[in-house]
Amino acid sequence: MGRAEHIPVPAVKRLSLYLRQLEAFRAVDRKTVSSRELGASLGLSDAQVRKDFAYFGQFGHPGIGYRVPELIQRVRQILGTDKTSNVLLVGAGNLGRALLAYRGFTRRGFQVKAVFDADPGKIGQSVAGDGGLIIQPVSEMREKVRKESIRTGILAVPADAAQAVADAMTAAGIRGILNFAPTMLRVGPEVSVSSVDLAVHLEQLSFQVGASM
Amino acid sequence: MGRAEHIPVPAVKRLSLYLRQLEAFRAVDRKTVSSRELGASLGLSDAQVRKDFAYFGQFGHPGIGYRVPELIQRVRQILGTDKTSNVLLVGAGNLGRALLAYRGFTRRGFQVKAVFDADPGKIGQSVAGDGGLIIQPVSEMREKVRKESIRTGILAVPADAAQAVADAMTAAGIRGILNFAPTMLRVGPEVSVSSVDLAVHLEQLSFQVGASM
Repeated sequence: MGRAEHIPVPAVKRLSLYLRQLEAFRAVDRKTVSSRELGASLGLSDAQVRKDFAYFGQFGHPGIGYRVPELIQRVRQILGTDKTSNVLLVGAGNLGRALLAYRGFTRRGFQVKAVFDADPGKIGQSVAGDGGLIIQPVSEMREKVRKESIRTGILAVPADAAQAVADAMTAAGIRGILNFAPTMLRVGPEVSVSSVDLAVHLEQLSFQVGASM
Repeated sequence: MGRAEHIPVPAVKRLSLYLRQLEAFRAVDRKTVSSRELGASLGLSDAQVRKDFAYFGQFGHPGIGYRVPELIQRVRQILGTDKTSNVLLVGAGNLGRALLAYRGFTRRGFQVKAVFDADPGKIGQSVAGDGGLIIQPVSEMREKVRKESIRTGILAVPADAAQAVADAMTAAGIRGILNFAPTMLRVGPEVSVSSVDLAVHLEQLSFQVGASM
């Protein structure tokens, strides 16, 4: 697969940024881009750009730079988003429904294939999303994960229910959790968690706005 | 005010994490905590914890550690969230409505005081939130920002409308933007932007899940 396991986390994060920028270049029909241009658009040095791509064995062409479509394909391959991945969602409240309606996931190759909720009153309801999904009970998660080869799940339940849901997701075979609950999850080493604490972003902004007064 | 302007960004980010953890300690009625305990709960060394707090002139008490309520108050003061801040929201779609319902903001001292949308069909509608807000036209933003002393805004509109909205927010006096649109915003040096690109989180998880296979 050519996946690199020991790449520094910040370099992997920059890959997502490069990908956004490369897609912007492609949208205006640019065929090639230099490390300097790509870096400048993101506030990074050309040396940084070259170093990041060298981790993945990707090198520019002398006098040409990087070929845009080729590099987009390569970055997606490294991130594992060159093919569509099936994901599941637990929590069909306000946030869960907003995430289902969020176009960015599909555009990036993630397709929500199943929605679960603990509330018996919600089971069987239809929710918006790819092909109108039906809310299922958590007890059916394991079977669905197996059937649809799902490895990643979005957790959008209240903080006090989050740990139990994370445990259920792990038991069902999920190996990556995108966590929106404002709490810290305890999971085994086989599971990766990425937490989105929206209030933390506002706190950080608050600091910056205050410091610049 | 005692706000520090030249603190490294990662240290400011850790402040939010310390705050979460300190509140967890307070919830179980802990009066004091050592730098080692606070660090261990977050996977950080005690030296790192002491160094971070030293930036802000905060020192533990020998043989006691940090006093939990005192440190919570101090961290909030540094972040500027010791008092309630008024914020506004632009975009009353699915995501905007989910954010209005999100309890985490209020709990952290942020109160959404106004909601704006560009869609004439939505103007005048009432939306959930603190005291039932009425969706207003963007043209009224400047007046509202002045009246309610709002400095921070949440941008939850589609990508193709985001730059125009960011410009309108800046013109209205907003100095911090929490951006949910999957696009890069161009703003002047007087404005701080924190972007939440949800797909980036999934991409990063995809990489980790793939690398661990």
